[in-house]
Amino acid sequence: MSHAPGFARLPEPPYYAVIFSSRRTDQDEAGYADTATRMFELVQEQPGFLGAESTRGADGFGITVAYFDSEASIAHWRRNADHAAARELGRKHWYEHYELRIARVERAYGGPPANTARTEVSP
Amino acid sequence: MSHAPGFARLPEPPYYAVIFSSRRTDQDEAGYADTATRMFELVQEQPGFLGAESTRGADGFGITVAYFDSEASIAHWRRNADHAAARELGRKHWYEHYELRIARVERAYGGPPANTARTEVSP
Repeated sequence: MSHAPGFARLPEPPYYAVIFSSRRTDQDEAGYADTATRMFELVQEQPGFLGAESTRGADGFGITVAYFDSEASIAHWRRNADHAAARELGRKHWYEHYELRIARVERAYGGPPANTARTEVSP
Repeated sequence: MSHAPGFARLPEPPYYAVIFSSRRTDQDEAGYADTATRMFELVQEQPGFLGAESTRGADGFGITVAYFDSEASIAHWRRNADHAAARELGRKHWYEHYELRIARVERAYGGPPANTARTEVSP
Protein backbone atom coordinates (compact mmCIF):
# COMPACT_ATOMS: atom_id res chain seq x y z
CA MET A 1 0.00 0.00 0.00
CA SER A 2 1.11 3.52 -0.54
CA HIS A 3 0.56 5.09 2.85
CA ALA A 4 3.38 3.32 4.77
CA PRO A 5 1.87 3.92 8.18
CA GLY A 6 4.70 2.29 10.15
CA PHE A 7 3.90 0.96 13.60
CA ALA A 8 0.36 1.10 14.97
CA ARG A 9 -0.05 2.48 18.49
CA LEU A 10 -2.44 0.09 20.13
CA PRO A 11 -4.03 -0.27 23.57
CA GLU A 12 -3.43 -3.26 25.81
CA PRO A 13 -4.92 -6.54 24.51
CA PRO A 14 -7.39 -8.03 24.02
CA TYR A 15 -8.41 -6.60 20.62
CA TYR A 16 -8.90 -8.01 17.14
CA ALA A 17 -6.64 -8.27 14.09
CA VAL A 18 -7.64 -8.60 10.45
CA ILE A 19 -4.61 -10.16 8.76
CA PHE A 20 -4.78 -9.60 5.01
CA SER A 21 -2.05 -11.08 2.81
CA SER A 22 -2.16 -10.58 -0.94
CA ARG A 23 -0.26 -10.81 -4.16
CA ARG A 24 -0.85 -7.91 -6.57
CA THR A 25 -1.49 -8.34 -10.27
CA ASP A 26 0.52 -5.97 -12.43
CA GLN A 27 -2.70 -4.11 -13.32
CA ASP A 28 -3.80 -0.57 -12.53
CA GLU A 29 -1.15 0.56 -10.02
CA ALA A 30 -2.50 4.13 -9.99
CA GLY A 31 -6.08 3.07 -9.30
CA TYR A 32 -4.93 0.63 -6.65
CA ALA A 33 -2.72 3.16 -4.88
CA ASP A 34 -5.46 5.83 -4.90
CA THR A 35 -7.99 3.43 -3.44
CA ALA A 36 -5.56 2.09 -0.83
CA THR A 37 -4.90 5.64 0.37
CA ARG A 38 -8.62 6.45 0.42
CA MET A 39 -9.48 3.27 2.32
CA PHE A 40 -6.80 4.01 4.90
CA GLU A 41 -8.30 7.48 5.44
CA LEU A 42 -11.82 6.05 5.61
CA VAL A 43 -11.05 3.24 8.05
CA GLN A 44 -9.62 5.76 10.52
CA GLU A 45 -13.11 7.27 10.82
CA GLN A 46 -14.67 3.88 11.65
CA PRO A 47 -15.80 3.28 15.21
CA GLY A 48 -13.51 0.80 16.93
CA PHE A 49 -10.61 1.07 14.47
CA LEU A 50 -7.37 1.02 16.48
CA GLY A 51 -4.60 1.15 13.89
CA ALA A 52 -2.99 -0.70 10.99
CA GLU A 53 0.39 -1.82 9.71
CA SER A 54 1.08 -2.59 6.08
CA THR A 55 3.96 -3.42 3.77
CA ARG A 56 4.56 -4.91 0.34
CA GLY A 57 7.77 -6.27 -1.14
CA ALA A 58 9.15 -5.76 -4.63
CA ASP A 59 7.73 -9.18 -5.58
CA GLY A 60 4.15 -7.92 -5.13
CA PHE A 61 3.46 -9.92 -1.98
CA GLY A 62 2.03 -7.75 0.79
CA ILE A 63 0.66 -8.03 4.31
CA THR A 64 -1.69 -5.55 5.98
CA VAL A 65 -2.85 -6.05 9.55
CA ALA A 66 -5.72 -3.82 10.71
CA TYR A 67 -6.68 -3.75 14.38
CA PHE A 68 -10.17 -3.20 15.82
CA ASP A 69 -11.62 -3.19 19.30
CA SER A 70 -14.23 -5.87 18.58
CA GLU A 71 -15.73 -8.23 16.03
CA ALA A 72 -18.68 -5.82 15.81
CA SER A 73 -16.38 -3.04 14.59
CA ILE A 74 -14.88 -5.36 11.96
CA ALA A 75 -18.39 -6.23 10.76
CA HIS A 76 -19.32 -2.55 10.66
CA TRP A 77 -16.32 -1.71 8.44
CA ARG A 78 -17.12 -4.67 6.25
CA ARG A 79 -20.59 -3.23 5.58
CA ASN A 80 -19.20 0.19 4.55
CA ALA A 81 -20.33 0.71 0.93
CA ASP A 82 -17.11 2.33 -0.32
CA HIS A 83 -15.10 -0.46 1.30
CA ALA A 84 -17.32 -3.10 -0.34
CA ALA A 85 -16.80 -1.46 -3.75
CA ALA A 86 -13.03 -1.39 -3.20
CA ARG A 87 -13.03 -5.09 -2.25
CA GLU A 88 -14.90 -5.91 -5.46
CA LEU A 89 -12.28 -4.03 -7.53
CA GLY A 90 -9.59 -5.88 -5.61
CA ARG A 91 -11.07 -9.27 -6.44
CA LYS A 92 -11.55 -8.37 -10.12
CA HIS A 93 -8.39 -6.47 -10.93
CA TRP A 94 -5.79 -5.94 -8.24
CA TYR A 95 -5.16 -9.25 -6.52
CA GLU A 96 -3.96 -12.49 -8.00
CA HIS A 97 -4.80 -14.05 -4.69
CA TYR A 98 -5.44 -13.05 -1.09
CA GLU A 99 -5.97 -14.64 2.30
CA LEU A 100 -7.85 -13.04 5.16
CA ARG A 101 -7.68 -14.19 8.77
CA ILE A 102 -9.56 -12.74 11.72
CA ALA A 103 -7.81 -13.19 15.05
CA ARG A 104 -8.15 -12.15 18.67
CA VAL A 105 -4.91 -10.63 19.98
CA GLU A 106 -4.20 -11.93 23.45
CA ARG A 107 -0.69 -10.66 24.26
CA ALA A 108 1.56 -8.00 22.82
CA TYR A 109 4.98 -6.53 23.49
CA GLY A 110 7.60 -4.49 21.68
CA GLY A 111 11.26 -3.65 21.70
CA PRO A 112 13.85 -2.28 21.72
CA PRO A 113 12.81 1.13 23.05
CA ALA A 114 13.06 3.67 20.25
CA ASN A 115 16.10 5.44 21.69
CA THR A 116 18.10 2.50 22.98
CA ALA A 117 21.74 2.75 22.00
CA ARG A 118 22.70 -0.13 19.74
CA THR A 119 26.15 -1.65 19.54
CA GLU A 120 27.93 -2.11 16.25
CA VAL A 121 28.36 -5.61 14.85
CA SER A 122 31.88 -6.86 15.50
CA PRO A 123 33.72 -8.41 12.55
CA MET B 1 13.24 -11.68 5.00
CA SER B 2 14.97 -13.39 2.18
CA HIS B 3 12.94 -16.55 1.77
CA ALA B 4 9.76 -14.97 0.29
CA PRO B 5 7.57 -17.90 1.18
CA GLY B 6 4.37 -16.50 -0.34
CA PHE B 7 1.06 -17.77 1.01
CA ALA B 8 0.97 -20.24 3.89
CA ARG B 9 -1.27 -23.26 3.45
CA LEU B 10 -3.10 -23.57 6.73
CA PRO B 11 -5.70 -25.89 8.22
CA GLU B 12 -9.15 -24.67 9.29
CA PRO B 13 -9.14 -22.36 12.32
CA PRO B 14 -8.71 -22.16 15.20
CA TYR B 15 -4.93 -21.83 15.34
CA TYR B 16 -2.48 -19.18 16.58
CA ALA B 17 -0.67 -16.32 14.85
CA VAL B 18 2.55 -14.60 15.90
CA ILE B 19 2.41 -11.20 14.21
CA PHE B 20 5.89 -9.67 14.11
CA SER B 21 6.31 -6.19 12.63
CA SER B 22 9.74 -4.59 12.51
CA ARG B 23 11.82 -1.82 11.08
CA ARG B 24 15.33 -2.84 10.08
CA THR B 25 18.42 -0.87 10.87
CA ASP B 26 20.79 -0.44 7.93
CA GLN B 27 23.30 -2.77 9.66
CA ASP B 28 24.55 -6.18 8.68
CA GLU B 29 22.24 -7.13 5.80
CA ALA B 30 24.20 -10.31 5.03
CA GLY B 31 24.13 -11.56 8.61
CA TYR B 32 20.46 -10.72 8.92
CA ALA B 33 19.52 -12.47 5.68
CA ASP B 34 21.51 -15.60 6.57
CA THR B 35 19.89 -15.83 9.97
CA ALA B 36 16.40 -15.20 8.59
CA THR B 37 16.83 -18.05 6.12
CA ARG B 38 18.21 -20.35 8.82
CA MET B 39 15.36 -19.51 11.24
CA PHE B 40 12.81 -20.18 8.53
CA GLU B 41 14.35 -23.62 7.94
CA LEU B 42 14.52 -24.31 11.65
CA VAL B 43 10.96 -23.28 12.49
CA GLN B 44 9.65 -25.72 9.91
CA GLU B 45 11.04 -28.55 12.04
CA GLN B 46 9.22 -27.32 15.14
CA PRO B 47 6.25 -29.32 16.37
CA GLY B 48 3.02 -27.45 15.72
CA PHE B 49 4.43 -24.98 13.19
CA LEU B 50 1.80 -24.53 10.45
CA GLY B 51 3.28 -21.97 8.07
CA ALA B 52 4.43 -18.36 7.74
CA GLU B 53 4.06 -15.33 5.51
CA SER B 54 6.60 -12.54 5.38
CA THR B 55 7.35 -9.39 3.45
CA ARG B 56 9.41 -6.22 3.76
CA GLY B 57 9.12 -2.98 1.80
CA ALA B 58 11.92 -0.85 0.42
CA ASP B 59 11.54 1.45 3.46
CA GLY B 60 12.74 -1.32 5.80
CA PHE B 61 9.35 -1.91 7.42
CA GLY B 62 8.40 -5.59 7.42
CA ILE B 63 5.69 -7.90 8.68
CA THR B 64 6.07 -11.64 9.31
CA VAL B 65 3.15 -13.73 10.50
CA ALA B 66 3.98 -17.24 11.72
CA TYR B 67 1.20 -19.71 12.45
CA PHE B 68 1.20 -22.47 15.08
CA ASP B 69 -1.34 -24.99 16.26
CA SER B 70 -1.23 -23.91 19.90
CA GLU B 71 0.24 -21.57 22.46
CA ALA B 72 2.35 -24.49 23.68
CA SER B 73 4.03 -24.76 20.26
CA ILE B 74 4.77 -21.02 20.28
CA ALA B 75 6.35 -21.37 23.73
CA HIS B 76 8.39 -24.35 22.53
CA TRP B 77 9.80 -22.38 19.57
CA ARG B 78 10.53 -19.47 21.87
CA ARG B 79 12.70 -21.73 24.03
CA ASN B 80 14.77 -22.95 21.06
CA ALA B 81 18.36 -21.89 21.79
CA ASP B 82 19.27 -20.91 18.22
CA HIS B 83 16.09 -18.88 17.99
CA ALA B 84 16.86 -17.15 21.29
CA ALA B 85 20.35 -16.25 20.01
CA ALA B 86 18.87 -14.86 16.79
CA ARG B 87 16.37 -12.75 18.75
CA GLU B 88 19.21 -11.30 20.81
CA LEU B 89 21.11 -10.33 17.64
CA GLY B 90 17.89 -8.80 16.31
CA ARG B 91 17.45 -6.64 19.39
CA LYS B 92 21.08 -5.54 19.39
CA HIS B 93 21.78 -4.99 15.70
CA TRP B 94 19.03 -5.61 13.18
CA TYR B 95 15.87 -3.90 14.39
CA GLU B 96 15.30 -0.24 15.13
CA HIS B 97 12.03 -1.33 16.65
CA TYR B 98 9.64 -4.26 16.60
CA GLU B 99 6.19 -5.19 17.86
CA LEU B 100 5.04 -8.72 18.53
CA ARG B 101 1.42 -9.75 18.97
CA ILE B 102 0.11 -13.22 19.74
CA ALA B 103 -3.40 -13.88 18.45
CA ARG B 104 -5.90 -16.71 18.14
CA VAL B 105 -7.19 -17.01 14.56
CA GLU B 106 -10.91 -17.62 14.61
CA ARG B 107 -11.99 -17.35 10.95
CA ALA B 108 -10.19 -17.42 7.62
CA TYR B 109 -11.02 -17.26 3.95
CA GLY B 110 -9.28 -16.53 0.67
CA GLY B 111 -9.93 -15.45 -2.88
CA PRO B 112 -10.04 -15.26 -5.79
CA PRO B 113 -9.28 -18.87 -6.73
CA ALA B 114 -5.81 -19.05 -8.22
CA ASN B 115 -7.02 -19.75 -11.77
CA THR B 116 -10.03 -17.41 -11.95
CA ALA B 117 -10.07 -15.39 -15.16
CA ARG B 118 -9.81 -11.69 -14.39
CA THR B 119 -11.32 -8.92 -16.50
CA GLU B 120 -9.17 -6.04 -17.69
CA VAL B 121 -9.70 -2.61 -16.19
CA SER B 122 -11.78 -0.46 -18.55
CA PRO B 123 -10.48 3.03 -19.27
